[in-house]
Amino acid sequence: MHKTILAMALAAVVAGPSMPARAQQPAGNAPPVTLQSWGSLHVGGREVVISGQPVREVLFTPGGVPARVDPNGTYLMGGMYAQYMIPAAPRGQAPMLLWHGGGLTGVTWETTPDGREGWQNFFLRRGWPTYVSDAVERGRAGWSMIPEQTGGQPVLLTVDNPFERFRIGAGQGSYQRGEVLPGNQFPADRDSYMNFMRQVVPRFTTTDGLTLEAYLALLDRVGPSVVVAHSQAGLFGWRAAQERPDKVRALVLIEPAAIGDIAKVAALRNIPVLMVYGDYIAQDSRWPTIRGNGVRFAEAVRAAGGSVDVVDLPERGIRGNSHMIMMDRNSDEVAQLVQDWLAAKGLWR
Amino acid sequence: MHKTILAMALAAVVAGPSMPARAQQPAGNAPPVTLQSWGSLHVGGREVVISGQPVREVLFTPGGVPARVDPNGTYLMGGMYAQYMIPAAPRGQAPMLLWHGGGLTGVTWETTPDGREGWQNFFLRRGWPTYVSDAVERGRAGWSMIPEQTGGQPVLLTVDNPFERFRIGAGQGSYQRGEVLPGNQFPADRDSYMNFMRQVVPRFTTTDGLTLEAYLALLDRVGPSVVVAHSQAGLFGWRAAQERPDKVRALVLIEPAAIGDIAKVAALRNIPVLMVYGDYIAQDSRWPTIRGNGVRFAEAVRAAGGSVDVVDLPERGIRGNSHMIMMDRNSDEVAQLVQDWLAAKGLWR
Repeated sequence: MHKTILAMALAAVVAGPSMPARAQQPAGNAPPVTLQSWGSLHVGGREVVISGQPVREVLFTPGGVPARVDPNGTYLMGGMYAQYMIPAAPRGQAPMLLWHGGGLTGVTWETTPDGREGWQNFFLRRGWPTYVSDAVERGRAGWSMIPEQTGGQPVLLTVDNPFERFRIGAGQGSYQRGEVLPGNQFPADRDSYMNFMRQVVPRFTTTDGLTLEAYLALLDRVGPSVVVAHSQAGLFGWRAAQERPDKVRALVLIEPAAIGDIAKVAALRNIPVLMVYGDYIAQDSRWPTIRGNGVRFAEAVRAAGGSVDVVDLPERGIRGNSHMIMMDRNSDEVAQLVQDWLAAKGLWR
Repeated sequence: MHKTILAMALAAVVAGPSMPARAQQPAGNAPPVTLQSWGSLHVGGREVVISGQPVREVLFTPGGVPARVDPNGTYLMGGMYAQYMIPAAPRGQAPMLLWHGGGLTGVTWETTPDGREGWQNFFLRRGWPTYVSDAVERGRAGWSMIPEQTGGQPVLLTVDNPFERFRIGAGQGSYQRGEVLPGNQFPADRDSYMNFMRQVVPRFTTTDGLTLEAYLALLDRVGPSVVVAHSQAGLFGWRAAQERPDKVRALVLIEPAAIGDIAKVAALRNIPVLMVYGDYIAQDSRWPTIRGNGVRFAEAVRAAGGSVDVVDLPERGIRGNSHMIMMDRNSDEVAQLVQDWLAAKGLWR
């Protein structure tokens, strides 16, 4: 871990009682769903050998028995986790892989921060076999504490950062001011927002190569799939489709933060692509550039014979969406737009 | 992160291709299961304030737009993740909470490393509402990189460590020798064992207090439950039951690594407890002591009027179990023993 982080001063610990989490709101009147199977798997990863370190005794559990821990040896690193749920009556014509964005895990697609059903529920209910992954170094994929492997300096976000950067609040300082963008659909009441912050995990910025490699391993394992990718995973969605065009039946990019390899746009010519952007982009400090890069890349793919549909939600009359569209109060409305697009492409019957 | 770890020399990177993961083996002929609802939640956690650190620019995504990241401010730490699956026709008389052991996540209870259905599947199929959690600092709970919060020195295991410490191989050096304990039930072929190692995550040894606090928050959120706890979580199972005796309907401890608070044994007098131990304990360097401590604690609970059943599997003719009983090839047989015990206690109809 980098010295900057190591040197952090713990200025004050607001201990107090645990913050009350919002009461669980089960699906309510939603009908039951029948699964044929469900489970999880890991893919990818590589062996890394460490040597020359002293052996230690570790007391793992108070009152336990110290155990010898030799840090020298072989570690497994760079793997990825995925959990699958396969409906008994599938209607999707391929599995749907749900790839989360930066600083987050597969929880992105589960229950929303205000307790509604997430996109995983939405698509499973419509007969899509779903695979929700935790990317390399995130969540159940585990992470590496060896700096040479990760770059060594993770970034973890303060509570105000996503509020101000994900187009929920009205820019810098808005968290302290409690100022939400007018008409914003993100559930920004304190309980819901803190539930969202509980989903945020540390992120290394140096593991993109490992992550792409693991996504390719996932595609090789699951076979031809529809890939739904958010934010950072836009990079992996584009690149994975370029590396495995035969394994990606369609690419749905929700506010992709990056583009693919401009030298390989031709590899995308047989893969239908949908790009979805939310509201408040013109007034943001970064998103006009990010969206502009995405739209220009889409044009390059089209010029190579590909098919890319770019949807700016406000132009469809769908207003108020933050960067976390799958958590916004109108998340089902946008999921339906994606569902209709997939059906129109012949991928759902 | 501690200097010892920071100083680790990356002696050699065995790059090569990604290791092939074992082909997914779906449930095969298992019947479908109908869910009333499913989703996830986070509980617990507290706010921690950091100050005095410089603001940086972070390029999160290549080709993206640098973002201002101010590390000063308020972080949420110490939360816990849980994923629930609620059957449409419940037969369990309370939710079942599945608590994993040290260096692991809730994946412990999912698909086994050799691709069979895990204990979560087993119990859900029998009508138990299941809640699989990732404890504080593990998996989808996220982790903290602030040393004052965690103690700062995580432990990550080399591939030989669990093999030799979890009673799979025949003691120190057995991984290199490829020597499995005779009759061992753990799926120790290379592919399966590496799948297990992919589930291993870094673990801090200094976060027990935060973790107990989060388990109490989980019990408060879900309500009276059956708690099934493995290894390190034995500590949390005992202690949580002592702190919330009205919220724990039964306690099933699979090879608990630690005991409860001896001063509070009376709090356990109305909670039926089952302790299960596997094979090869007498010949192990640590497990005779760990089991002995557990059995003595059980006697103290009984002396206070409680009911504790201790099952040594070999005495029931169930042989070959490692420390990872829920992954062993006879995992269903042991799950059935737990299921029968719960039914006998009136907790399943």
